[in-house]
Amino acid sequence: MEFKDKYGPWALIAGASEGLGAAFAMGAAQRGCNVVLVARSDSKLATVAGEIERTHGVRARTLAIDLGEPNAASRVVVGVEDLEIGFFVYNAAAEPRGLLLDTPDEALMRNVHINCAVPTLITKALATKMVERGRGGIGLCSSGGALQGLRLFAAYGAAKAYELLLAEGLWDELRGSGVDVMGYVIGTTLTPTFRRERNVTPEVEAALRAAGAQSPEECAARFFDVFGGGPRGYASDRIGEKFAADAQRPRAEVVAAMGEFMQAGFG
Amino acid sequence: MEFKDKYGPWALIAGASEGLGAAFAMGAAQRGCNVVLVARSDSKLATVAGEIERTHGVRARTLAIDLGEPNAASRVVVGVEDLEIGFFVYNAAAEPRGLLLDTPDEALMRNVHINCAVPTLITKALATKMVERGRGGIGLCSSGGALQGLRLFAAYGAAKAYELLLAEGLWDELRGSGVDVMGYVIGTTLTPTFRRERNVTPEVEAALRAAGAQSPEECAARFFDVFGGGPRGYASDRIGEKFAADAQRPRAEVVAAMGEFMQAGFG
Repeated sequence: MEFKDKYGPWALIAGASEGLGAAFAMGAAQRGCNVVLVARSDSKLATVAGEIERTHGVRARTLAIDLGEPNAASRVVVGVEDLEIGFFVYNAAAEPRGLLLDTPDEALMRNVHINCAVPTLITKALATKMVERGRGGIGLCSSGGALQGLRLFAAYGAAKAYELLLAEGLWDELRGSGVDVMGYVIGTTLTPTFRRERNVTPEVEAALRAAGAQSPEECAARFFDVFGGGPRGYASDRIGEKFAADAQRPRAEVVAAMGEFMQAGFG
Repeated sequence: MEFKDKYGPWALIAGASEGLGAAFAMGAAQRGCNVVLVARSDSKLATVAGEIERTHGVRARTLAIDLGEPNAASRVVVGVEDLEIGFFVYNAAAEPRGLLLDTPDEALMRNVHINCAVPTLITKALATKMVERGRGGIGLCSSGGALQGLRLFAAYGAAKAYELLLAEGLWDELRGSGVDVMGYVIGTTLTPTFRRERNVTPEVEAALRAAGAQSPEECAARFFDVFGGGPRGYASDRIGEKFAADAQRPRAEVVAAMGEFMQAGFG
């Protein structure tokens, strides 16, 4: 069955103004879905929406909502209540960076809000309607940082673990309902955000590429390849293999090695 | 070096009115620490405090605070600002039970608040002072439900994964500071809460025991045995071995098998 018929006519992508979110939206449109794009910046969303409409001849609605607002989840849900949302990808994220003890309380609470509370509420609201219709798909974007503690991004990794486990649990609860759920474990992706955070010289890019870094388009393409195949998907085989291998090693080694990697890149 | 000298003179236990939290507090007192007990019920706390003082001759302060309140974290931090808290265990938990789609939004947000936001803020505040002093210990109670998605407790498992990963990341950031951090992965424990949730007949108890279930005292004793040994501790070897074995299996099998187990016990 075609993607659009299997899941539904509209896809909602949260965090869709550029990079990976825009690539998820383009991928859903390529598969025949109309798209709703959510992010803070109305002008960025308009650009992405225009490109999607021109390229794939589908409809694109934009919702300029700051997911850090207290009532963000209900604003999103209300903003699509006239549509059949058959596919939902939560790609939005707060990314507090720096040592936990140096991170302002507000940033830590924003992390909990945007990465835990908001996806939980939107997921519940949309999944309820999907189950009533007997079809739908939900992907929550997690991270390799959810698989072991993450120096300099400790609260971010924690929240990404929340999303991963929430997706896995809901996958199990909705098995057989026609609604697929997946937590998608993403590694280094050369998004605009990533390029803003790090000075990605050609040399750095070559080194990251050699270590498995993906373009947003590659990461999104893999998502659609693996979606529906179980509670957890990996953006590359390498990430899944590392998880399996790390589980056999002393935990202190695993966390410390990842910490050295993060320190080298972001310290 | 003795526990009290290594970490400090006072231990703070959040979620200490009975069961596992009371056992953690008793364990800290047995090691010479005065204790601060936090939970909702003043009368239950008074009972535990009295028993600890009589048994171990230490001082016990109680703070009756509902950790579900918006300003709960700052109330706890203010309530101990005159003391040197050298050891902190976050054992409090919201435990929403039931299918995610049947769980009220308020219960899902309470889960995020009590299991993610509050431990993050208290941990940050206490750890900052510990690092200044060059000594301290922090244990965040997680769960086997943090290791794969958990049917009927999807949001709970997600939040427990948050706590586990937060502890692991902070362990790495504080290595060498004199402050030990550990996420403690707890399996089935025959706490008063557990006994209220399930009808634990002698037959059920025998079966659970055979499958590795612990008393609160056993679980707390193991905690003190493994604390300081790395970013993650397991309440039993069996839980750690399951994690390592599960990481080699297809994720759908792992999550579905745990789901069947949960369904049998709580469905």
